[in-house]
Amino acid sequence: MKYSQLFCPTLKEDPASVEVASHRLLLRAGMIRQVAAGIYDVLPVGLRVIRKIETIVRQEMNRAGAQEILMPMVQPAELWKETGRWEGNGKELLRFKDRNERDFCLGPTHEEVVTDLVRREIRSYKQLPVNLYQIQTKFRDEIRPRFGLMRGREFSMKDAYSFDVSLEGMQESYRKMKVAYENIFRRCGLQFRSVQADSGNIGGSQSEEFMVLAQSGEDEVAHCPNCGYAANTEKAQSSIDFSTLTKEVFVQKEKKETPNQKTIEQVASFLGIDPDQTLKVLLYHTEKGIAAAVLPGNRELSEIQFQRALGVSEFRPLAPAELKGQGGVEFGSIGPIDLKKAIPGVTQVLFDTLIHKGRAYCVGANENGFHWVGAVAGKDFLANDEPYNLHKVAQGDRCMQCDGGMLEVERGIEVGHIFALGTKYSKAMNCVFTDENGKEKPMEMGCYGVGVSRTAQAAVEQNFDDKGIVFPPAIAPFEVVIDVVKWKDETLQKHAVELYQTLLDHGFDVLLDDRDVSIGVKLKDAELLGIPARILVGHKGIEQQQLEVKMRWAADQHWISPSELVSWLKENLEKGIDA
Amino acid sequence: MKYSQLFCPTLKEDPASVEVASHRLLLRAGMIRQVAAGIYDVLPVGLRVIRKIETIVRQEMNRAGAQEILMPMVQPAELWKETGRWEGNGKELLRFKDRNERDFCLGPTHEEVVTDLVRREIRSYKQLPVNLYQIQTKFRDEIRPRFGLMRGREFSMKDAYSFDVSLEGMQESYRKMKVAYENIFRRCGLQFRSVQADSGNIGGSQSEEFMVLAQSGEDEVAHCPNCGYAANTEKAQSSIDFSTLTKEVFVQKEKKETPNQKTIEQVASFLGIDPDQTLKVLLYHTEKGIAAAVLPGNRELSEIQFQRALGVSEFRPLAPAELKGQGGVEFGSIGPIDLKKAIPGVTQVLFDTLIHKGRAYCVGANENGFHWVGAVAGKDFLANDEPYNLHKVAQGDRCMQCDGGMLEVERGIEVGHIFALGTKYSKAMNCVFTDENGKEKPMEMGCYGVGVSRTAQAAVEQNFDDKGIVFPPAIAPFEVVIDVVKWKDETLQKHAVELYQTLLDHGFDVLLDDRDVSIGVKLKDAELLGIPARILVGHKGIEQQQLEVKMRWAADQHWISPSELVSWLKENLEKGIDA
Repeated sequence: MKYSQLFCPTLKEDPASVEVASHRLLLRAGMIRQVAAGIYDVLPVGLRVIRKIETIVRQEMNRAGAQEILMPMVQPAELWKETGRWEGNGKELLRFKDRNERDFCLGPTHEEVVTDLVRREIRSYKQLPVNLYQIQTKFRDEIRPRFGLMRGREFSMKDAYSFDVSLEGMQESYRKMKVAYENIFRRCGLQFRSVQADSGNIGGSQSEEFMVLAQSGEDEVAHCPNCGYAANTEKAQSSIDFSTLTKEVFVQKEKKETPNQKTIEQVASFLGIDPDQTLKVLLYHTEKGIAAAVLPGNRELSEIQFQRALGVSEFRPLAPAELKGQGGVEFGSIGPIDLKKAIPGVTQVLFDTLIHKGRAYCVGANENGFHWVGAVAGKDFLANDEPYNLHKVAQGDRCMQCDGGMLEVERGIEVGHIFALGTKYSKAMNCVFTDENGKEKPMEMGCYGVGVSRTAQAAVEQNFDDKGIVFPPAIAPFEVVIDVVKWKDETLQKHAVELYQTLLDHGFDVLLDDRDVSIGVKLKDAELLGIPARILVGHKGIEQQQLEVKMRWAADQHWISPSELVSWLKENLEKGIDA
Repeated sequence: MKYSQLFCPTLKEDPASVEVASHRLLLRAGMIRQVAAGIYDVLPVGLRVIRKIETIVRQEMNRAGAQEILMPMVQPAELWKETGRWEGNGKELLRFKDRNERDFCLGPTHEEVVTDLVRREIRSYKQLPVNLYQIQTKFRDEIRPRFGLMRGREFSMKDAYSFDVSLEGMQESYRKMKVAYENIFRRCGLQFRSVQADSGNIGGSQSEEFMVLAQSGEDEVAHCPNCGYAANTEKAQSSIDFSTLTKEVFVQKEKKETPNQKTIEQVASFLGIDPDQTLKVLLYHTEKGIAAAVLPGNRELSEIQFQRALGVSEFRPLAPAELKGQGGVEFGSIGPIDLKKAIPGVTQVLFDTLIHKGRAYCVGANENGFHWVGAVAGKDFLANDEPYNLHKVAQGDRCMQCDGGMLEVERGIEVGHIFALGTKYSKAMNCVFTDENGKEKPMEMGCYGVGVSRTAQAAVEQNFDDKGIVFPPAIAPFEVVIDVVKWKDETLQKHAVELYQTLLDHGFDVLLDDRDVSIGVKLKDAELLGIPARILVGHKGIEQQQLEVKMRWAADQHWISPSELVSWLKENLEKGIDA
């Protein structure tokens, strides 16, 4: 490809109101442009990256025995009603009517459509197992689309669905997909981790997420260096360990005035105590009334585990205004003692397992501007309640699996998710087969997703510096860029064009920067686009019969003789980004 | 690929309520399944065909200098309002609101989105020309989806948009696309014709359709074997030629009773005259009242030319019930004499150019059960009116371009359409550039579409026999199928597997039918799927060290020696379907 022919509108300045580096860089490198909130044009350079990821995905899916199909983006409501997800989903499921007033939605996922296909076409155990996948545009009407392609509304996804005769068969299909996913992300040149995860709205007995590690990732994952345990912190559990608590300070229960001290930090600092000597109460709106979570002041709530423990479908933090007419107590003074009396709307109070029975805590007094100190867990509250695992695990928690390792918490971007679904969808939709004995049984299903466009951006979020993107070679828009010190110099141009042709003939994906602009502009654009190998064509090199080559991630350039260039490039592109 | 691993649910019986052969065959060959009206799952074999077409399209578009991008399927109303097409389009444009009550539509085409992209990113003549294309899912909420992928609601399309600084530049871009399209359909192995066409809803000064010739095609094209002129019959014009009219029979004007004679055929037969001695009147509902078209009884109306002559946007045939309260005259007795008086709602009456002034005709008397005979054109009606070209050209009409050839009318399926748009969209959306003199000008645009999924089906509609599909090799799901007389025979199986590997190693796309079913079933499925080359592995061939090969379109099989097989297959696949 010649740069003069490439529609790649790079930006010199950082775009405004962009929250993460990868979003900024995709815009600056002319790879995407926004059309509406969460909806993008993908420009030629961006599409080259996505197509390379698609090719890797397709190769690994086919190698694992999956077959590519294409299901529609527009899906009839009838199918979603069979599984209860037409009503069960929120506004993320974009619903509309066609010209005949029939209900349809834009597919955010395809369990219903694929299960409908398989139940119509497959009848016998002899036709199983089968694993069908597609690479298709999806739409989720996100409440807060953000971060470019990372949390867009319209996005490209690979989704696969396996159908088996037995649980064991399904587990084997799941295992194959896990291997395929590891191959996909490894071949993309990404640092990733597979972690245990919550199955959420999709359902099923078991699920794992594939996380590209990056500091700005939306997800937190806990990982044990000792035994390898890894899980999303929303799902992860750690050993209960009270040995690290600070020493108790309260000698007796008394009510203290805490004027204008609202947050845990404020109260702890006002009273001169450690936050782990306080308890916090978080209130959520549910269809069963207000639910309260009580946990140590220094820990964070896992909303997913709280919602799961409550067994509710409506679930969101209560707004301060919603406390009106509820006894008068305000956020900042709410505590677990007689909470249901103080706030009549509260119907459930759940306590976290990290609250130490017998320990004296500082808790809100359910009276504005007052706290109790010295209130004892197990006596003043939590006397007859079963505690729940409501906290997110944190850096330094003890691993529950090996009980020896200290968990490390990293941030990640979810790029893949595999689910052992079981019979949730096959039972709801009567997707059955006849077994060897002529008996009808529901198929055992799994489903498996890769966020294709999201992976492209996650690769950038993991690999960039102050000059721009540093693409892993396997998914870079081009492998090699040829920059010419002065394009109008006929000798240089002749050498560059010859070199371009040579590299094309050897199968490299090459960009020849044939623009008549300064070498500074050309080098900056090559760095911004993150092209792995750069060859600079100048008179010095021609005189010395050497080529000046620099890998994007390396500090230094190398002088390579023309006869060695091809093997040198192959080797260094193969090696990939220096650790 | 091994057949046992392939999800290909072929049907032994013809599916019900299917109108065209290709739709029936796509269903029977397990290539597609309906999800909702006009919405389909594409199964593995079908997708292989579509992907091969996509690859050809991509290669030819890239070769022509176009660049691939990806625009969203969900498009904001704001852009469509700028061009007036938000209101201007009918219900084919599927509109809906997102969770924030903002208006969106599912993209049936992308002129607005691409023009918005280019106006934001391109400012100078130095950045032009540019041609951007995508292969993307489209949605049109057709009033009557039918014929499978041929007129579906959700379908796959390649659409390209060129932007130039001048009319000459645009014409050059258009010419390049025309060449690319000819290459695409030629490489797909299809018999096609490019014809002049109406630009319809898209607009612009000039357009050409690419028609795959097939007897059941929805479109009619006229073609002059003498000079090569070719046009859609909706758009085509022929020389006015009154020499072929039958001899006049009416000597004087008189009113005749024609009880219960409603159609032209009935009236002509009742009176013993030729239909070309009658005139018919067709009524249409428009926003400007009822419009009437008058043309010879033996000719068909071109709705597109009539609508264009009227200059209306609302346009549909008037229903019989809509004549109520309009003077009482019914269909079958309507005629051009004092028509506006007889039917007060009629505001426009247009006469066709094929009505011969001075000739006496039989026309409806605007009195139920009566006709005038001997009414003279130019005297009793059409005295002061300008005639319009309202008729469709017909087989045997004289070519207007060379005035020598006799037009032939064929049926075709529109698989591509190229438009010289001019500045329709760039002016409406202020998509301007600065020229060499610093002056702002609107860009000159063209747009170019290929129906990708429709091409797959059109290929079938053009190429089938009573046994199934006959795919052109370039877009066949597999090039070669290996059938084994008895799979469980170890010797045969060993030979087949070796042959399979040899052909894969030589780059053929091979299907090995490894199913333990009768050879009859295997041969039938291979024929149904339309795989170009079939190799039958049996003991006779092994003994004689020859391979039994048959091309799908040929009557006879050939005995080929193993050493010649690769070159024989290459040559015969290259040659393609026998004419």
